[in-house]
Amino acid sequence: MMVHPWKIIEDTFIPERVKAAESLFSIGNGKMGQRANFEEAYSGETLQGSYIGGVYYPDKTRVGWWKNGYPEYFAKVLNSAFWIGIDVKINGETLDLHTAKVIDFYHELDMQHGVLTRRFTAELSNKIKVAVEAVRFVSITRTGLGAISYTVQALNSAADIEITPFTDAGVKNEDANYDEKFWDFVFQSATPDHSTIVMQTKKTGFPVCWHSNYVLLLDGNPVEHAFVPVEKTAWAGASAKVKVRKNEKVTLYKYTGITNLQNRNTADLATAAKGIADNAKETGFLRLKEEQAGAWQEKWRHCDVEIGGDEKAQQGVRFCIFQLLQTYTGEDPRLNVGPKGFTGEKYGGSTYWDTEAYCLPFYLSTAGDEVARNLLLYRHSQLPQAIDNAKKLGFTDGAALYPMVTMNGEECHNEWEITFEEIHRNGAIAYAIFNYIRYTGDRDYLSTHGLEVLIGIARFWAQRITWSEERGKYVMLGVTGPNEYENNVNNNWYTNYIACWCLRYTKESMEWVRQNHAACYDEIIKKTHFDELNEWAQWDDITTKMHFPRHEKLNIFLQQDGYMDKEQILVKDLDSAQRPLNQKWSWDRILRSCFIKQADVLQGLYFFEDDFDEDAIRRNFHFYEARTVHESSLSPCVHAVLAAKIGDMDKAYEMYLRTSRLDLDDYNKEVGEGLHITSMAGSWLAVIQGFAGMRVRDGQLTFNPRLPKHWTHLAFNVNFRGEIVHCKFD
Amino acid sequence: MMVHPWKIIEDTFIPERVKAAESLFSIGNGKMGQRANFEEAYSGETLQGSYIGGVYYPDKTRVGWWKNGYPEYFAKVLNSAFWIGIDVKINGETLDLHTAKVIDFYHELDMQHGVLTRRFTAELSNKIKVAVEAVRFVSITRTGLGAISYTVQALNSAADIEITPFTDAGVKNEDANYDEKFWDFVFQSATPDHSTIVMQTKKTGFPVCWHSNYVLLLDGNPVEHAFVPVEKTAWAGASAKVKVRKNEKVTLYKYTGITNLQNRNTADLATAAKGIADNAKETGFLRLKEEQAGAWQEKWRHCDVEIGGDEKAQQGVRFCIFQLLQTYTGEDPRLNVGPKGFTGEKYGGSTYWDTEAYCLPFYLSTAGDEVARNLLLYRHSQLPQAIDNAKKLGFTDGAALYPMVTMNGEECHNEWEITFEEIHRNGAIAYAIFNYIRYTGDRDYLSTHGLEVLIGIARFWAQRITWSEERGKYVMLGVTGPNEYENNVNNNWYTNYIACWCLRYTKESMEWVRQNHAACYDEIIKKTHFDELNEWAQWDDITTKMHFPRHEKLNIFLQQDGYMDKEQILVKDLDSAQRPLNQKWSWDRILRSCFIKQADVLQGLYFFEDDFDEDAIRRNFHFYEARTVHESSLSPCVHAVLAAKIGDMDKAYEMYLRTSRLDLDDYNKEVGEGLHITSMAGSWLAVIQGFAGMRVRDGQLTFNPRLPKHWTHLAFNVNFRGEIVHCKFD
Repeated sequence: MMVHPWKIIEDTFIPERVKAAESLFSIGNGKMGQRANFEEAYSGETLQGSYIGGVYYPDKTRVGWWKNGYPEYFAKVLNSAFWIGIDVKINGETLDLHTAKVIDFYHELDMQHGVLTRRFTAELSNKIKVAVEAVRFVSITRTGLGAISYTVQALNSAADIEITPFTDAGVKNEDANYDEKFWDFVFQSATPDHSTIVMQTKKTGFPVCWHSNYVLLLDGNPVEHAFVPVEKTAWAGASAKVKVRKNEKVTLYKYTGITNLQNRNTADLATAAKGIADNAKETGFLRLKEEQAGAWQEKWRHCDVEIGGDEKAQQGVRFCIFQLLQTYTGEDPRLNVGPKGFTGEKYGGSTYWDTEAYCLPFYLSTAGDEVARNLLLYRHSQLPQAIDNAKKLGFTDGAALYPMVTMNGEECHNEWEITFEEIHRNGAIAYAIFNYIRYTGDRDYLSTHGLEVLIGIARFWAQRITWSEERGKYVMLGVTGPNEYENNVNNNWYTNYIACWCLRYTKESMEWVRQNHAACYDEIIKKTHFDELNEWAQWDDITTKMHFPRHEKLNIFLQQDGYMDKEQILVKDLDSAQRPLNQKWSWDRILRSCFIKQADVLQGLYFFEDDFDEDAIRRNFHFYEARTVHESSLSPCVHAVLAAKIGDMDKAYEMYLRTSRLDLDDYNKEVGEGLHITSMAGSWLAVIQGFAGMRVRDGQLTFNPRLPKHWTHLAFNVNFRGEIVHCKFD
Repeated sequence: MMVHPWKIIEDTFIPERVKAAESLFSIGNGKMGQRANFEEAYSGETLQGSYIGGVYYPDKTRVGWWKNGYPEYFAKVLNSAFWIGIDVKINGETLDLHTAKVIDFYHELDMQHGVLTRRFTAELSNKIKVAVEAVRFVSITRTGLGAISYTVQALNSAADIEITPFTDAGVKNEDANYDEKFWDFVFQSATPDHSTIVMQTKKTGFPVCWHSNYVLLLDGNPVEHAFVPVEKTAWAGASAKVKVRKNEKVTLYKYTGITNLQNRNTADLATAAKGIADNAKETGFLRLKEEQAGAWQEKWRHCDVEIGGDEKAQQGVRFCIFQLLQTYTGEDPRLNVGPKGFTGEKYGGSTYWDTEAYCLPFYLSTAGDEVARNLLLYRHSQLPQAIDNAKKLGFTDGAALYPMVTMNGEECHNEWEITFEEIHRNGAIAYAIFNYIRYTGDRDYLSTHGLEVLIGIARFWAQRITWSEERGKYVMLGVTGPNEYENNVNNNWYTNYIACWCLRYTKESMEWVRQNHAACYDEIIKKTHFDELNEWAQWDDITTKMHFPRHEKLNIFLQQDGYMDKEQILVKDLDSAQRPLNQKWSWDRILRSCFIKQADVLQGLYFFEDDFDEDAIRRNFHFYEARTVHESSLSPCVHAVLAAKIGDMDKAYEMYLRTSRLDLDDYNKEVGEGLHITSMAGSWLAVIQGFAGMRVRDGQLTFNPRLPKHWTHLAFNVNFRGEIVHCKFD
């Protein structure tokens, strides 16, 4: 993988790396995305993936041993029709890089312009050498458009070239729990001009239409009446046979319109998809590509981060920003930021606490208040499901527990130690409201939407704690903190802290709304049957009498009760052959070790830094960083920000590279499954909050830049309260 | 269900209770067993079940989220061919109690003689009334023989009766993880005289042969050449049509030989099965039945428990003894006592810690030393797998962790909180060696087999503990005690206690073998690479510095660290609508509550009663009994024994009825899935160790009888060191 400030480049064909490259070179537009699968046939190892935002399948839950409270299904990100397909035969032999001899190969993702290019020369068994150039993008200006230019040239002889653009809707998910297909076939047609396929998801009944048309050129000149339609089950395309002379170029333009609006009937979808494809054909590939390039440059104008003197760091951060922009645009409040975005199936669902804890600040600063607000509205709209979820577990009176993983507000996750216990997520959702208001100044959001969510969350905490007669303190039993290498612990410091913060912040917010929006306030009180006297008194009691585990001698907060009973070994003393622990050790061993998967106490110090002095942060940082293996993608960014804060710039830089180049350098040996999209927002945080030290205090942007020594400068734009602020630090 | 001292009787046909009765009226002979499914067609709700000891299928593990260390498969108790099948048509209409009008019905399991009888009168849609008597047993004298007598009589008219005995091998398991069939078809034949089917389990390749022959009588006179063979896929039988006059009786005798010896080829199996069936036919049904009755009476001579003045209690204990004797005979050391025996599929596997903790004392006292010794040899033979299992989790140097569930020594269970954490099972396996020696006096067992097992187990504990620098104590992190309503706790008192006991007992045993069998000792030391100096020193250090959680003020042992942080509610204050908790509450709520599923601290006080004074037992009993919901079948028996010990006879009697009539009275609303076989041994313990107060002290049987007031007497026989001891208490 070459280092380049604006591009991801691979200039060698390595079959073992094909899946990794498919992830890394993924393209998307916030509504849909496509892994960098090859257009032509490929018989080697591959993960075909084409994903459409909001189109999911509720796959029947698979567990070993059912526990009361488990969800019935896990909402899967759906692999949908392979619309990029272009079969190529040269003198009757299928072009396939797995069987051909690859002579040279070049793969480029141009992040500045949002275009994917692949060029190669290959020799087939029949000794014909061909050169191919494939260029494609999914448009960010024309929703639902995918465009491909595919050029084939026979280099050493004349040849018969057969080229067959197609859409194959007979696809499956690799992660299907019961090996089912998730799609029902609805309709298809194929003519010499176009193909149309309509499929509908099982159970959820989401219809999707793919409509493609084609243009064929021979050395730049249109070939008329070239195509003959071809159809199979849930597979439609057209085939053209062309006799070419040596070095003559055949170019296919394929324009595909993809529509999936849930509120249209299938006929409308097909008309809309045809419209998109036909307009594109009329516009032409080169002009479309210019449009795309212009739109991407405009995007970058708002959110580029320029790092001088460090191309690896530069490429890393731009890759993260590019992928985030491809995943979520904030235009549709029903969508969210999936952990793998549109780059893989793993983890299912679209929404984790990653959104609130990591992604929100990125979108606030790069995309503006409205986009960020849509992320909050998403959770607001799902408050009823969060209340139902809590009720299912035995909570009452409007307590809300937001799901660990969701598509539509319902919980999908089915490990008890996560689903029922990783409840700190509820805190992050409240924190996001605070964070949004701090950044935007839009405190009125409380009265229109925020307060109801806060009340539901606060009520959950008020019921989730237990009064320990024994200690004369409130305790929080049976939780899993952000560090998932511990389960079912008591008094996770971070969870206890954010729970108390939620109670205080909710009460403050209620008081503010009462004073400033009295009518709204009364309505909310009525709607939630809120009992000011008793509920507030109980909240106050909890926040003043909560137990927070700490170690007096070391003067640090303790991750949880009993943490110091563990054998205290440092990560630096771990044999590297034992890493990553999650691949090398049994779960039993991991659970009993002191090693931390992900920032836990430090996550709390990061969120609530103003509550602690720098020495406290330093002491805890040194203690916990030495025990953290960062086997969650969400971990190093928080350590990077805190390390910069306490002036440990070597550590900050190490953590920054780890987060920003996690996928590019494949730290976790799993990039083939898809990219770690949500943690990419953390990489941005590491630069902006870490190295630039950006904070909002009293409605003002403040900076405290501390750059790694070898960086010549750091420049970026942030969107703050409607203005683009240009920042540059030397 | 009628109360009767020797019989289980049901005299009404209740369709909703058919599955329950199928479990309760199950018959078996320690090698195989058969649920009380009807011979003739039944289209209502049923769980067909026919099981063969040692014949299992390794069903691919199903989990939601894989954890390192999980087993690849779960060994399932296999539903095998339905060999009891007899289709009956009356004037062309199939006899089926689900569709016919049932006029009277009588179902009887004669536990004294080991025979199942069912009689009914039914009217078909065609208005023919028939009376049927079906009698069957699986022989305990002739291994592999099942015999059925089936008589049909038309009561109100002449009729054409078609009677078709068959074996249907096309069966499935309800609990198959992936809805697969577990059997491959090998061979079948059907002639007018007999049918043969050979099937083989997938993956494990266990062949099983079923060979049936038939005799047809009309009013007691043989009908020659009555049968015409009938075959379908994996289904073989024969059909006879008889014209009967009103009240004339047609009787079918069906003899089935079932062979499954793993070391024979399939041809031998078929010859053997034919031999069994043919010999039976020659002997005749009535003589076979006499044989069976005599053999059962002989069994009862050794192990009957007679309770005077309380028929419910009497029936309960005999039912438990009968089912235990049907499940395990101790003749084949490859077999064990499955939690559902041969009465259902649930729980899979054949061996849990139930065997050592509950069943061993029963078989010691009722079946003799050899049978009990076979239970120990079973674990000894699986020591290599236990060492592998521990290695897989990261333990070294011959540490052994016996599996939670197994068929062949390999772990099957796949919940991390059980599989990796419910390690107290290892202690029970060591305790069984101690218990066996205490009862039999056979201390030499240590030198030949026991010591190696003890060393493996002791080494596991020595590695499983953690030195807490903080406390200056050893701790045991991340365990699940017998109370599975808590997971991943620290310092479960029972686990810590039995671990230390294992270390001490192993060292003592080593010293004894060194002194008494020096050559053996040297060999074991060499084989296990045992380092006396260092390992013993470490064990001593652990046993002297182990942390045992206790509550000073209440002067009780604490179930685990932090137990008193829970909200302390008593079971008596629980709304009965909330019970059983495992059906009414979310897992989240159960885990955080103080309610205990199963004796935990009390299990330790039961095992090691001599280490504690009676006051300590009383204090702990009152504290924990008040918090125990007994939602495990293994719980009430331990409470019954302890309650009797401390003189709380009302509680002891309540617990005794709960354990002994658990299935008869269906306390847990789940008897349709099968019986709780292993807990039945606990019922026996409740009588013998509880009410009779039987103990072995210094090689002597001692008694301390305390009977419930209304019992006129308690009499039983125990087998002690080769003698049958007759005990009677008034």
